[in-house]
Amino acid sequence: MTEVNGSASPQQHSAQESSIPRPLRIALLGFGTVASSVARILVELKPSGIELTHVYARSLAKRRAAWVPASVAWSADVNAVLDSDVDVVVELAGGLEPAGRWVRKALTAGKSVVTANKKLIAFRGVELERMAADKGVYLKYGAAVAGGIPVIPAIEQGLIGDRIKRIDGILNGTCNFILSKMEEGFEYAPALAEAQAKGYAEADPTEDVGGFDARAKLTILMRLAVRVAVDPEAIKPRPITQVSAVDFSYARDLGCTIRQIARADRSDGKIAASVGPTLVAMRSPLAWSRGTENMVILTGRYGGDVVFSGHGAGGNPTAVAVVSDLLTLAHGAQPVKIPSEQAEVDAECELPHYIRFLVDDRPGIVAEITGALAKERINIRAIVQKPGYPHHALPFVVTVESCTGSALKRALENIRGRDYLLEEPLDLQMLE
Amino acid sequence: MTEVNGSASPQQHSAQESSIPRPLRIALLGFGTVASSVARILVELKPSGIELTHVYARSLAKRRAAWVPASVAWSADVNAVLDSDVDVVVELAGGLEPAGRWVRKALTAGKSVVTANKKLIAFRGVELERMAADKGVYLKYGAAVAGGIPVIPAIEQGLIGDRIKRIDGILNGTCNFILSKMEEGFEYAPALAEAQAKGYAEADPTEDVGGFDARAKLTILMRLAVRVAVDPEAIKPRPITQVSAVDFSYARDLGCTIRQIARADRSDGKIAASVGPTLVAMRSPLAWSRGTENMVILTGRYGGDVVFSGHGAGGNPTAVAVVSDLLTLAHGAQPVKIPSEQAEVDAECELPHYIRFLVDDRPGIVAEITGALAKERINIRAIVQKPGYPHHALPFVVTVESCTGSALKRALENIRGRDYLLEEPLDLQMLE
Repeated sequence: MTEVNGSASPQQHSAQESSIPRPLRIALLGFGTVASSVARILVELKPSGIELTHVYARSLAKRRAAWVPASVAWSADVNAVLDSDVDVVVELAGGLEPAGRWVRKALTAGKSVVTANKKLIAFRGVELERMAADKGVYLKYGAAVAGGIPVIPAIEQGLIGDRIKRIDGILNGTCNFILSKMEEGFEYAPALAEAQAKGYAEADPTEDVGGFDARAKLTILMRLAVRVAVDPEAIKPRPITQVSAVDFSYARDLGCTIRQIARADRSDGKIAASVGPTLVAMRSPLAWSRGTENMVILTGRYGGDVVFSGHGAGGNPTAVAVVSDLLTLAHGAQPVKIPSEQAEVDAECELPHYIRFLVDDRPGIVAEITGALAKERINIRAIVQKPGYPHHALPFVVTVESCTGSALKRALENIRGRDYLLEEPLDLQMLE
Repeated sequence: MTEVNGSASPQQHSAQESSIPRPLRIALLGFGTVASSVARILVELKPSGIELTHVYARSLAKRRAAWVPASVAWSADVNAVLDSDVDVVVELAGGLEPAGRWVRKALTAGKSVVTANKKLIAFRGVELERMAADKGVYLKYGAAVAGGIPVIPAIEQGLIGDRIKRIDGILNGTCNFILSKMEEGFEYAPALAEAQAKGYAEADPTEDVGGFDARAKLTILMRLAVRVAVDPEAIKPRPITQVSAVDFSYARDLGCTIRQIARADRSDGKIAASVGPTLVAMRSPLAWSRGTENMVILTGRYGGDVVFSGHGAGGNPTAVAVVSDLLTLAHGAQPVKIPSEQAEVDAECELPHYIRFLVDDRPGIVAEITGALAKERINIRAIVQKPGYPHHALPFVVTVESCTGSALKRALENIRGRDYLLEEPLDLQMLE
């Protein structure tokens, strides 16, 4: 990538809008919500330097939109579009395949690629970036993390002079919608149902509520901000499905609420990462995010905390990120190539924990639990039991000082299967 | 700027860290807090592609820092540094002159310039950018607005596909420190004194508390985000000096707090801008900013609100922005040139207002005030009078529906000089 030749390469275009020799020819792969928003912005703003020329859509009859200029060629044959003379392919199909095959084919053909595909970038990003560099083209994915929040360009440009040591993110709008509904008093199931009714959650919500979507985005942020390329599967996400309305009630008493937090931390050469429901202090910015909003807090060695917040999903905000990537390509604004190293997730976050038990109450339970914690040298911070619950199904909470999740797991192993436990204890990290 | 020649130009450097042919040679003009933080980061991180070679400092004896490599040439002669073979001049002296002269000289000599000088960029930015473009070099000022918050790169890259229609900013850390102290119960004078003791406020705090600093930054953001170049002096800032602890008490009753807000709005082809103390809803992100923090909310036509928050000043955060600008230059990451048009501030923000009176109480005052407002067809929303104040110095508050500041001014003109008014009524805009 030290020298780029060939007049069709986007980086040959000048940095000044007025002097762009020929607009970049753009193909959209897919014409769902985001893609049609991209097309809509291009039609409405007519930004100089880019021209939508091709759309691939599986069902042409259904998709050919009347407001898209007649000059755009529609095709139900993705290979025809990939073989065309477009300069940039915009991949908005999502998922590893066939999207990965299309992106590889485009890069191999010397076309730059803009994508919103977090899964593909999380799992195959290093390989695909290398392919792009070998061909002297670009792979841009500003839309893959936090949609309309320009956190990737901010890292690549404005924070490149710092060393980011920690990421705390609310990266999945579906989980944030469900958890902020639960903060209002809903139980998990009706909150999920409402998210599904509004189109925020899929019929099978596992990718979101299981933490897999947030994990993919965290992995991408880790590569750019913390500069370590880790295997996403090395991070075991914890689902939000076990969180109950009673946990919000206890959290409130602790001055907290609950959010799905994706966290990565690089200190003393060790890398820790976690994704899961987490208690966050009400006074923390992380508690401000409501509904489908996303938030990213980056902590730099020199610059301290920088907070980014906004719409993490939705057609228009995500499309802004895609169009912005297209315009930076068109205007020759090459990204800085941030070096990253292959690394292992080799540490655990050491944080205070919240453990909620649901028990058939009887004497001796607290003694047994505290004994199990003591055996692992875990310090208890507080034992909280709110009134108003029945003895035979009594929720109560133990909070403990900073420890690793695995030490806590070993401690809880000691009481596993006790007949007073009506369900597995719920263990949540606490951010303060 | 369509074609750039000459091997010393920063944009000839490649986009890949590993293949940069020769580091950019950097000169620091000034060696105060920010400059020494810049030097410190360069010494500690040794980022590839840039090399600190010259420092200009007026008092050499005092400034020559032992931890700066011996290879760096120190000089008390600014012209000698400007005439040297450096590629990039970092101007951190601040103010219009002599900084402007130095920047012009550097650009004329074909050197790129990185600066944190908001005043210079606000008043002379258009001219200086044109000079840079003519010479095929760059003028970068990521540090000029909101210090360590990468809002300028985010606008230039991640939001360039949107059209920003509104800016709401907390752009002056000194005012935010004073006002958040007052939120805790302090009066203005002791809050200012504490800001001065901590080094956040100058002995003469006019530039900050008068709103001139925030106005300069707002003007820069308007040029980049709203794409209009306006004369900073067309915006009349209102000082925070008239705000009193009693206003925070009334604001709280209204579900609000008070922040210095820099606001610009472009709608229906009209441009409105204002800087001054403003009531903001406690649930608004603008109320979250405490201490010297800065915050910027950009509202895009497509992407909706994006919130940026972090440290707006201080040596290290500002230095991160400077070093990031240097690295993007070194790595050939040309900025997208955002077009802006010369424009007039030709509208006023139409917002609800908070008006606080301090009166020697007697019958008929409310009737007279409400009558004066009615004459200008300003709708009253609420009249609030808290108990516990003496009759001869009674503060009370009238809130009104959306109106322009000048309509309200005309209304208040009708009661000007009444002997029951112990001071000028305090008029604050309200954001909801």
